Amino acid sequence: MKCRKCKAQAEIPLPSHNTAFCRECFSAFFTGQVEKAIRRHHMIEPGERVLVALSGGKDSLSLMLELARLGHDVTGLHVDLGIPASSPAARAKVQGFCQRHGLDLRVVELEKEGLPIPDVKRYVNRPVCSACGKIKRHWFNRVALTEGFQVLATGHNLDDEVARLFANTLRWDASYLSDQGPCLPAENGFARKIKPLYRLTEYETACYAFLNGIDIHAAPCPYSGKASFTGHKRLWADLEHTSPGAKIAFYDGFLKNGRPAFARLEQEAGLPLAPCARCGSPTSAEICGVCRLALTVAERRAADPSLQSGGHAGGQERTEGDPAFRVEA
Amino acid sequence: MKCRKCKAQAEIPLPSHNTAFCRECFSAFFTGQVEKAIRRHHMIEPGERVLVALSGGKDSLSLMLELARLGHDVTGLHVDLGIPASSPAARAKVQGFCQRHGLDLRVVELEKEGLPIPDVKRYVNRPVCSACGKIKRHWFNRVALTEGFQVLATGHNLDDEVARLFANTLRWDASYLSDQGPCLPAENGFARKIKPLYRLTEYETACYAFLNGIDIHAAPCPYSGKASFTGHKRLWADLEHTSPGAKIAFYDGFLKNGRPAFARLEQEAGLPLAPCARCGSPTSAEICGVCRLALTVAERRAADPSLQSGGHAGGQERTEGDPAFRVEA
Repeated sequence: MKCRKCKAQAEIPLPSHNTAFCRECFSAFFTGQVEKAIRRHHMIEPGERVLVALSGGKDSLSLMLELARLGHDVTGLHVDLGIPASSPAARAKVQGFCQRHGLDLRVVELEKEGLPIPDVKRYVNRPVCSACGKIKRHWFNRVALTEGFQVLATGHNLDDEVARLFANTLRWDASYLSDQGPCLPAENGFARKIKPLYRLTEYETACYAFLNGIDIHAAPCPYSGKASFTGHKRLWADLEHTSPGAKIAFYDGFLKNGRPAFARLEQEAGLPLAPCARCGSPTSAEICGVCRLALTVAERRAADPSLQSGGHAGGQERTEGDPAFRVEA
Repeated sequence: MKCRKCKAQAEIPLPSHNTAFCRECFSAFFTGQVEKAIRRHHMIEPGERVLVALSGGKDSLSLMLELARLGHDVTGLHVDLGIPASSPAARAKVQGFCQRHGLDLRVVELEKEGLPIPDVKRYVNRPVCSACGKIKRHWFNRVALTEGFQVLATGHNLDDEVARLFANTLRWDASYLSDQGPCLPAENGFARKIKPLYRLTEYETACYAFLNGIDIHAAPCPYSGKASFTGHKRLWADLEHTSPGAKIAFYDGFLKNGRPAFARLEQEAGLPLAPCARCGSPTSAEICGVCRLALTVAERRAADPSLQSGGHAGGQERTEGDPAFRVEA
C-alpha cells in the first residue's frame, strides 16, 4: 500500500479516512487534525498561555509535544496521585519527557495536599475513580486560575469522547448533552477547557507517540479494576469496523444537531458561585467539594486505630525510595 | 427457578426484568405491558375501531390476538406483496389465523393494484425494501382512511424501535428524533398510529406466539438480502446482556428527555397536503408517491421488450397454483 500523499511505502493504515500514510505524511495528517480542531472551535487565541494536563500517557504527552511544535505557549501540569505502585513511575515519565523537550512543568503532590489517592480510597465512601477525577480536575482548574493560564488542555481523544458521549446518550442525559464538546468557554474564573485531540483516535495518538519516540507511562492504574467505558469502546470499534468514519460522524453530528437541541431546552439553573473559604476555588457551597474530601480524609485518618503516630494509611504500601519532588518552575 | 408471581416452576426467564415466569404469569405480564403502553400513550379510546397491519409474522399476529382479547374492536389488514416465493405462504398464515380466531380481515393484493413487488424491484431504481415499506404504509393509511378506522396498529416491538432509534441517533437526525414514538397522533385525515408492543422484546413476542400456538410465517423475505438494523440489533443484544433493561431505558429516556428537546427545535415546515388526484390519499404533490411508483412500473413494463403480450415480469416466477384471493369482509 502506498502513502496517499507522497506515494512512498505506507506504514500507517487509516481505514476511517480510507487511506494510509508514510511516517512523515502521517505526522502532517496528525498536525492537520489538531490545527483543524483548534481553528474550528477557536480553542487558542494568539498570546494565550496553555496549561496542559499531563498524566504521562500517550495522549497527554503527544498533545503537549504537538502544541509546542505548533508554537503555542505551553506548560505541563502533572498531578502526582501518591499511589506507590504507579505514581512515581508516571511522574518520572512526565519529568523525563519535559526535560528532554525543554518544556515547563508544574507538579502537584496530592500527598502534600492531604489527599493521596490511597487515603481517598480507604476513607471516602464513593468510587475512587470518580473522586480521583474530581480531585484532578480541581487541581487543573486551580493551577490555571492561580497562575494565570487562559486555557486548560487535556488529551482526550476521539475514542474517549465518543465513549463518553455514547454513555450519556444512552441515558439521554440532557444536562450533559446540552453543554459538552471539545471547547468549553471560560466561566466563573475557570480557564477555557479544550480537547485538541478530539478528532484523532486512540490508535492515531498511539502511532504519533510511537513515531516520535515518546517514552510513555502505559501501565493501567492499579485501582481501576475495570476501566470505565471499556465495553462501549469495544462496541464502537465494531461500529467503526463496519462503517469507517462512524465515530467522527457521531461526534460531529452531535455538535451540529444534537447539542443545539439540548442547549436550547436546558435551563441555566446553576447556583451562583463564590470562592471556597478554604482554597479559593469557585464553589456553590461555602467549602468546595475537594476541600470537603480533604477534611473527611484528615478526620478519618486521625481516628483510624490502625495508624500509629499519625502517619497516613497509604504509607503502609509506600515505596521507601519515593523521592520528595517539589513543584518545579 | 421459580415463577416470581405464583412460585410454580418458571418456564420463561426475563433477565431484563430480573425475573422469570410460568406460562400463565408470562401471559399476564405480556398483557400488562400492552395495557401499560396503551394507557400511558392514550393509544385507543373507547369505541374506536382499530386496523391491525398483519404480515403473518410473530409480532403482528401476537398483537392482533392480544388486542382482541383485551376487547378492542380490531380488523386485520394484510398486504399481499405478490412475491411468488413467499407471499402466498404469508397470506395463508394470516388467513388461517383470522379464521381460527374469528377475526375480521381485509387483504390488499398489490398484483391487482399494479404494484407487485417483483415489478417494483425490476422497474424502480431504488432499494426495494424502502419502496415496499412505502407502499405498505400507503395501503395501511388508505384502508384506514377509506374504511373509517380511527387507529392503525403495527406490531413493532422494542428491538425494532430501539434499532431504528439508535440508527437515527447515530446520525443525530433531528427530523426523525423530533416526532417518533409509540403513538403518533392522527393528522391530515390519517389515522392515529400506534405500536402497542413497543415495551416487549422480540424474544418476548416470540414466547407469546409460541405459548399461544400461533402458526406464524417465519421465512425471511427473499428480497431482504441483509435485513436492515441487524448489526444494531446484535449490538443491542450485547448491551442488554451487560446491562439488563438497557433497551427500554434507552427508549423511555428518549421519549422523556430526547424527543422534547428535538421537538422544540424542529420547525414545522411541512408542506400543505391535498388529496392525490389518482387515489385520494393526502399528498403534498398532485399525485402521491405510491401512485407515481405505480405509473413508473406500468410505463416501464409496457416498454419492456422481454415481456410478450403485456404480461408482468413478476409472473415469470409466479407459482401457477397461486389462488386469486379477494378482499374479505
